[in-house]
Amino acid sequence: MPKFLGKVEFPVTIELGRGLEGAITNITKIGYVDGEAGHLNYRGYPIEGLCEHGNYSEIAYLLMFGKLPNRAEQDAFSAKLQAGAPLPPAVVKVIDALPKDANPMNALQAAVAAAGCVDREAGMVATHASDPASSIETETNVGIRVLSVTRTAAAYIARSREGKPIVTPDSSLSFAANYYYMMTGQKPDAITTKVMDVLLILQADHGMNASTFAAMIVHSSMSDMYSTVAAAIGSLRGPLHGAANQAALDDLLTVGGPENAKAWVEDRMAKGQKVMGFGHRVYKAYDPRATVLKRYAEQLCKQRGMEKIYQTAAAIEEHVLAAMKQAGKPIFPNVDFYSGVVYHVLGFAAPFFPVIFAVGRTAGWVSRVLEYLPENRLFRPRAVYNGDTDLKYTPMSDRK
Amino acid sequence: MPKFLGKVEFPVTIELGRGLEGAITNITKIGYVDGEAGHLNYRGYPIEGLCEHGNYSEIAYLLMFGKLPNRAEQDAFSAKLQAGAPLPPAVVKVIDALPKDANPMNALQAAVAAAGCVDREAGMVATHASDPASSIETETNVGIRVLSVTRTAAAYIARSREGKPIVTPDSSLSFAANYYYMMTGQKPDAITTKVMDVLLILQADHGMNASTFAAMIVHSSMSDMYSTVAAAIGSLRGPLHGAANQAALDDLLTVGGPENAKAWVEDRMAKGQKVMGFGHRVYKAYDPRATVLKRYAEQLCKQRGMEKIYQTAAAIEEHVLAAMKQAGKPIFPNVDFYSGVVYHVLGFAAPFFPVIFAVGRTAGWVSRVLEYLPENRLFRPRAVYNGDTDLKYTPMSDRK
Repeated sequence: MPKFLGKVEFPVTIELGRGLEGAITNITKIGYVDGEAGHLNYRGYPIEGLCEHGNYSEIAYLLMFGKLPNRAEQDAFSAKLQAGAPLPPAVVKVIDALPKDANPMNALQAAVAAAGCVDREAGMVATHASDPASSIETETNVGIRVLSVTRTAAAYIARSREGKPIVTPDSSLSFAANYYYMMTGQKPDAITTKVMDVLLILQADHGMNASTFAAMIVHSSMSDMYSTVAAAIGSLRGPLHGAANQAALDDLLTVGGPENAKAWVEDRMAKGQKVMGFGHRVYKAYDPRATVLKRYAEQLCKQRGMEKIYQTAAAIEEHVLAAMKQAGKPIFPNVDFYSGVVYHVLGFAAPFFPVIFAVGRTAGWVSRVLEYLPENRLFRPRAVYNGDTDLKYTPMSDRK
Repeated sequence: MPKFLGKVEFPVTIELGRGLEGAITNITKIGYVDGEAGHLNYRGYPIEGLCEHGNYSEIAYLLMFGKLPNRAEQDAFSAKLQAGAPLPPAVVKVIDALPKDANPMNALQAAVAAAGCVDREAGMVATHASDPASSIETETNVGIRVLSVTRTAAAYIARSREGKPIVTPDSSLSFAANYYYMMTGQKPDAITTKVMDVLLILQADHGMNASTFAAMIVHSSMSDMYSTVAAAIGSLRGPLHGAANQAALDDLLTVGGPENAKAWVEDRMAKGQKVMGFGHRVYKAYDPRATVLKRYAEQLCKQRGMEKIYQTAAAIEEHVLAAMKQAGKPIFPNVDFYSGVVYHVLGFAAPFFPVIFAVGRTAGWVSRVLEYLPENRLFRPRAVYNGDTDLKYTPMSDRK
């Protein structure tokens, strides 16, 4: 059993399970999930400190470039993000053409793919074999633009659905504050900005999750960064990945108050039903992102006068933990459990939860793909064939 | 070393190489590539017979449902394809909004994602856990619509680029003939229809190639079929996957005539440069798709009075085979070598080669994803972390 930490020399002997469990995609320095201990780091920095002190664009820089930026680096990076922020007119038209009640993740996928039709450098990574150094530099700059324009598209999709006009980016705002502003038309107060930063940072990267994995496969054919991020958005759309927090919030709203939590949890357990927002494929301990977010959820709920939803969540957690401990199957809340609360209190509609997740995760997608580029090898596993062979074609009239 | 044939019980011990070489995604009955022997089958039927006797919609049915259709099944399938063929007005608007000179694969990705915004059943697969039988039936029907609308979108993208109006589907034509008709505005003659069918059939499925793999990962989060196919299109866009035949054709046109082939091949070999369209990650023998396509390329070139390009290709093949045999490294042409010739002679521009490939491969994407659905497990490999740990966040002013 590999520990997913340290050095590996390919080829390597592994135990492989269904869903590619146990398979190793590559060696990375971007981030590490220690599922046993409940630790998460980005580039060696524990997530807790990054959330407390950092802002999203600084952490996106860290993920992409492997170091925390100094002032000059941060300024140059911010200038590139700002240059990439305005939505190209073709992408505005594409979003306008889509039905207002479309799933916003499908809309975001279409918008990012459309942005790839506009960026003249989108496909230049294809020159990598003949010109490695400049293709990496170009693709890095394309990646920064994708990160920025995905956010603007996400914000305009939210506006467009409500029939509201586009809000153009305000370069005086931070990345996260600008995102909130473009979605709502309101400049965020201090705690809202902080919570937006924390949400985006916590969702920026998480090992070889399905959307990051999809991004790496797509880019490994030397496809462009827009096609890649659009593919990853397609993956994150699924309820087993990016849409899990919607279900967790739905439950919270159904429970309605902390006084109902005990009976509701007991009823679920008795029926053998899952409680959404608990358990994680990798974490066998408390999800460190849930710990961070729980604290900010409490602060935000208090400030907005919406303590009840926080108290309901905390009560559900308490009763689930107690019940599962008693059953000898310890299980813990994951990031989705508290992110739903925070999104709801910020005023975002449930179909947009995965969209905000996508904006945050774009830094991880871009970083992982760029890291793999110098050593790129097309991903090409096999399926095992267990069907017929050597059948003979029969004319249609002879078929049953 | 697993042989990728027969039964496998997970977990299984494997030798894993870079790019997930040797990894097993799942057990399949859809198709088998025997790279050593140079055989390819779909559902047990050797590809040669399917190309000789079949047409694309029949083979798409075979891939999706596991049997060759009888008359009633074929009629019902064709009716569903026809119902899904017209381009929704929103998708027409999206294609119209994109720059005419955009890479058509980015445009196709945007169009398919946009079609996913319109189809009301697009996300219903998300109910799979609670309602497996009806989710599989629904998703199968969605898959048929995706197959049909991807073709119509691909055709309109080609028209739109030349400033030509949309051609609405003609339900009296076969799937492949209709595609040609919607692209060119001309109804195809017999050999053109046959060659279109053969092209689409040969590219319909090919094991766990990168785009099929990407599709399976995306759908494994219970994401919808449009998001899934859009992601696969993003993968196929890359020159290491769907765009390889462009490069092969470029070379052919550069060589210009069979009399120049020997010198050109020798020059390439002397410089240690690759000849595009030769060699394949899986085939160690002659690519059976190239064998089939070579014969049709010869017929088509003759009929169109364009024998020179066929002769040039055949001469390059002859000299590469001779040189590589002499060097003790036998290498053979792959499907891309002759598909470029055929596309060119049919009058398609090089940027559209991967688009036609995508239309054909959609049947494989949809089939593989549907096959995995009953036993779905989210794909979740790991990356091995080999970076720093426990770094301390420093204020920006302290950073180098």
